Formats: sequence, structure tokens, C-alpha cells
Amino acid sequence: MPKSSNPSANHAMGTVAMRWHESSLELLDQRLLPAEEHWITLEGASGVAQCIRDMVVRGAPAIGISAAYGVALAARHAGGGDWQAEIKQAIRELAASRPTAVNLFWALQIMEKEFHGCHSLDEAVKRLSAMAVRIHEDDLAANLAMADRALEFMAPDKPFSVLTHCNTGALATGGYGTALGVIRRLHEENLLKRVYADETRPWLQGSRLTAWELAREGVPVTLNADGAAAAILARGEVKWVVVGADRITANGDVANKIGTYSLAVLARHHKVGFMVVAPSSTVDMALASGQDIPIEERDGSEVRQIKGVPVAPEGVRVFNPVFDVTPASLIDAIVTEKGVVHNPNITGMRALFG
Amino acid sequence: MPKSSNPSANHAMGTVAMRWHESSLELLDQRLLPAEEHWITLEGASGVAQCIRDMVVRGAPAIGISAAYGVALAARHAGGGDWQAEIKQAIRELAASRPTAVNLFWALQIMEKEFHGCHSLDEAVKRLSAMAVRIHEDDLAANLAMADRALEFMAPDKPFSVLTHCNTGALATGGYGTALGVIRRLHEENLLKRVYADETRPWLQGSRLTAWELAREGVPVTLNADGAAAAILARGEVKWVVVGADRITANGDVANKIGTYSLAVLARHHKVGFMVVAPSSTVDMALASGQDIPIEERDGSEVRQIKGVPVAPEGVRVFNPVFDVTPASLIDAIVTEKGVVHNPNITGMRALFG
Repeated sequence: MPKSSNPSANHAMGTVAMRWHESSLELLDQRLLPAEEHWITLEGASGVAQCIRDMVVRGAPAIGISAAYGVALAARHAGGGDWQAEIKQAIRELAASRPTAVNLFWALQIMEKEFHGCHSLDEAVKRLSAMAVRIHEDDLAANLAMADRALEFMAPDKPFSVLTHCNTGALATGGYGTALGVIRRLHEENLLKRVYADETRPWLQGSRLTAWELAREGVPVTLNADGAAAAILARGEVKWVVVGADRITANGDVANKIGTYSLAVLARHHKVGFMVVAPSSTVDMALASGQDIPIEERDGSEVRQIKGVPVAPEGVRVFNPVFDVTPASLIDAIVTEKGVVHNPNITGMRALFG
Repeated sequence: MPKSSNPSANHAMGTVAMRWHESSLELLDQRLLPAEEHWITLEGASGVAQCIRDMVVRGAPAIGISAAYGVALAARHAGGGDWQAEIKQAIRELAASRPTAVNLFWALQIMEKEFHGCHSLDEAVKRLSAMAVRIHEDDLAANLAMADRALEFMAPDKPFSVLTHCNTGALATGGYGTALGVIRRLHEENLLKRVYADETRPWLQGSRLTAWELAREGVPVTLNADGAAAAILARGEVKWVVVGADRITANGDVANKIGTYSLAVLARHHKVGFMVVAPSSTVDMALASGQDIPIEERDGSEVRQIKGVPVAPEGVRVFNPVFDVTPASLIDAIVTEKGVVHNPNITGMRALFG
């Protein structure tokens, strides 16, 4: 296996979602974790788009970074013909892969702008690769900065427990993680008693990915069925529910993995803090509120089957939204690398994101 | 297969959890549904206790009825020695099978009292069988009565949707069902728009059993991951969350399948009604509040694996409580065959249950 040319990809405690090799991108097939660590090597944008669609790679920031690398691959492997048309087509294809995480469109916009500044294919190959690496490195840096800001905001005086949902760690980002980055930092600072990880049906990112990342690093993690979160909060040990985001609108509403909104209601009921941790690339000031966010619905078979094993009557109707929207009014803090929006609303969001 | 001697066991739209044959009890192995309909034939109390422990049969009322039949089997197959000691031992063994559902202890108490009135083994064989059948038939009758009372209480003027959790249908009871009986009745009266069924991790009673029961009968059912319930309630179509119970205490607190408490908080937040439907055998006036209810915790492998397939790192710590406690303050109505307790509290509970 060639050595990765991207130093940031090797950060984050040895757990990485992707490796960049200039002429290829390797993605860890997250569908097979934790049973198997299988890497898929991609040399074109179509393959990257397919991997995003099929959830080989997932997590809003990781989707954006992968797509950026996909554009770089399109330049690298452009045929002898109209290289500009090929790159434009790659961007279109990547943009059509998944609808909700805005980081995808954010990253593609940056790549497109960079592409428009290129006057030759040679230049495009170099500049698009450099820009993708920069997007990746910036995301890692943002995660580290958010962990600082979150701890400053929480200002804990003694260790406490947190509850999290889905996977927001190194596997979901450029490294370290958003919500899971905050949890890593709490652990590093000896301020984490325990993290409860929702298993996060239907894709089980909590059991398969979060528990795997944390167990590898010796972070004290307890896995629970999503339905047990309320019973955990009722015990009073958890001080913060910490989650990531797939899109944050101008008023501070947050789209995130299905089940997040439930946790926000439960956190408020139990007087537990509810914190959203996401890089500014997740903020979409063009949308007024969460109602405007396109919510992806996936096939019912994701609920009717688990790992290919049927667990429900064949063909039974399923409601399978991938994300839900948490209104800003239930959120105590949105933490980004640019700063923290406390009790988010349109004023607080505009102050930070213009 | 011998014809069942218990008419009530053949009621309830063809779906039954058990069949009684005087010298044997057949239990439908609910762990294998919906893939396979496999019946287990039992001739002794130990086998019945094992089936309750292993969740071949589950659902508070069905557990109680099965245990009653188990006592009857102990009499029927008593050896030549001390038949009274054998029956007492059977009762002890059945009582130790699972801790939370009070219907188990309620049914065993009735059986024990009946046993104490018997002066010969012959008499015990007859009376214990007759009493077990009566417990079974009374439960079915209670379910039908509860459906009447619930509809009267809801007083719907047009069809609406409901959301339910776990399985409270024919498979969980003597037939027809508690919460699912209410839903069946709504459907029979053309008052049911749709029932959303939480899949109910970790045992997936919602996908495997509720969706199976309802799909067989053409009741419009939509399955959802537990984490999607909040998003469904936010859409405003659901007017009632309807669930069963494993134990109800003197103040109206309710222990039920893990995830129920979460729904109660969500229902209140969305101004959706929250109704608990359970026979009076589920009421335990000896316990002051839900804090006194013993909550069973089961092995972490139930969350780490699904149908034997690992979905989490081996050995990762798991919090796997089978039940949670919903405080009376979040419940709009407890419906029993004896009447409805509206906004339950100790006064309302005492008025109905003494």
C-alpha cells in the first residue's frame, strides 16, 4: 500500500476514514466495520460518488472531503478530450450523491471555484489536489479548535458523563471528530466519566463506528439501544448530550442523524445540556430554517433487514428518514471553529456567520 | 397436532401465542418470527419457565398465562411422590423466570391459592387446568373490554393515526391485545388512519411481531426506527401514543418496554395523548411508585449482536435494561377492564383498584 501523501490523514489516533495518494483515494468501507477493515481504492469521481451514496463513507465533513478528493481525481485522470467538461461533470455527479449534508455542496463550491481559476489541465491537477488536501487539513484543524471551544464553554470542574448519537469521530470527519472530538478532548483532560453511545438505528453507526473508535483508544464507552437514552438521562449522571450536524440553518435549526431531535427533547426535559458541534462548513445561511432542509429518505429495507437478515415482514411499509431537524430553541450551544453560538437564534448565527 | 381444548386460544384473528392441550402447552417461538412459525411443546413447568426466561413467550399478560399453564402441567405430570412439593417447586421456578412483569406473580398467586384448596392430585389436575384456562379467557375478555373503554375515552370523530411501541397484541396476551387491541378496534371501526410501529430495539418486537400481526390482518402499519418516533410526532398526524405495561404502581407509574418513557416525554412535548392499556392484573398496588419496580437488565450481547451477527466491538460495555419507568405525570390515561384512570395519581388509582 503506498504511503499517504497527506499528513493530516494519519492524525487522529490512528483512526482515519480516507487516505489520499494523489492519483487515488482510499476509503475505509465503513459498512463493514467493526467486523472487517476493508479499504476501497478509487481513481475517479464516479466511484467516489457511488461510495458516498452507498455510505462507504459517511458523516457530513467526511462526505465533503471525499467529494473534494473526487474532483481532484477527475482532473488527475481526465482523458485526452475536454478536461474541463469532465471536471464539471464530476462535480455534478458528486453533488447528486446525497442531499442533506451541506458540507458536500460547500466543498464542491470551493473546488469549482478553484477549477475556474485553472488555465491548463496540469494546473488543475496540482491546484485541485492541493485544495482538497487543504479542505481535509482545515477540517481536522477545525475539529481541534472546536474541542477547545467546547471545553471552554462547558467549563467542567469535575468529570461527568455525556451521551452521543451516531458517529462524529475520525471516521466522520477529516480526523479527531466534531462531537466525538469534544468527547476525546474531555477524556484527554481527565474530565470524562463515561460516554453513552446510542447504537443509532438503522445504520448502527454508534455500535459499529463510535464504540469501535472509542474502544480502540480506551475511552470509557457504554453502548445503549436508542430507546434507552431517556432512562440514562433520568439517572442524572449525564451532563451534556453532544452531537454533530449535517446542516445548520440561519436561525440555528440543526439537521442531524435521525434520533437527534428526540435527544434534544429528552435533554430539555431532564435539564441536561444539548450541544451541537460542527465546522462552519456545516452552516447554511442561505436557508432560513430547518423546514427548508431537504431530508433524505432511504429504502425501507434498511429497517426491514439488518446485515441482510430479515427482521420484519417482507414488503411492510417503512418510514426511513435519515435525518431529523432539531429546532434552535432546544439547543443550548452550537460550537464551531469560529466560535460558540449560545442559545442559538438568527441574531447569534448572523453575528458569527454573517 | 391435537386440537386445542381452549376455545379462547383460537380467537384473535388467528394469531395466538399459545395452545393448551391439558397434558401439554404449545408456545409459538416468538424469537423466530416473522421468518419461521415454530411451535415448542412443553409438558412441564421447568420448560415453561425456560421459555419465559428465553423470551420464547413474552408480553406481561402472556407470561402470566403461560406460567399458569406451567403450574397446571406440574400437576398433570406430577410423579408418584410428593405431588404437593412438586407443584410448590414449579411455582417457585416459574416465579424466578423474569422479574418485572407483575402479571407473572399475579397469575402464580391465583394458581397457588387454587392449589391450596385441592385435597388430591386428581382434584389439582382438574382445578389447576381449569383455573389456567380461566386466567387465559379472562385476559382475552379484559382485552376486548379495554378496547371498548379506550375508544369511549378517545371519542374520535374522524380517523387518526397512532404510534405504538413493542408488541402488545395477540402474541403478548391471551388474544386480541392490550394497546394493539385498541388499535385493532380502531381499525375495525374505521377510525384508524395508520399505526406507526417502533421497531423496538433490542428485541425488535415491533418489526418482528407487531408489523407481522398487523400486516396479516391488513391493518395499515408503517414501521420506523425508534429514533424516528419524534420526527413522526412532529408531523402532527399522530393523535395518540398507545402502549402496554409490565407493571403499574399505586401512584400510576408504569414500567414498560425500554423506550416507552422516551415516547411519553415526546408525546407531552408534542401535545399528543399518551395512553397505557393493561389489564388490572398488571396493577401492583403493593408498590408505592415506579422506583420500587425491579427492572430486569439482560445481557449486552442482545445489543452487540442482531440475530447472531456482531454489530459492535466484541466485549464493549452495554447498558441493556429491558424496561423503563414512565411517571404518572406524563400519562393521560391508564385503561384497564375495570375502568379508565384519567391523569393517573394515587387517588385515581385507589378509587379503581382499592
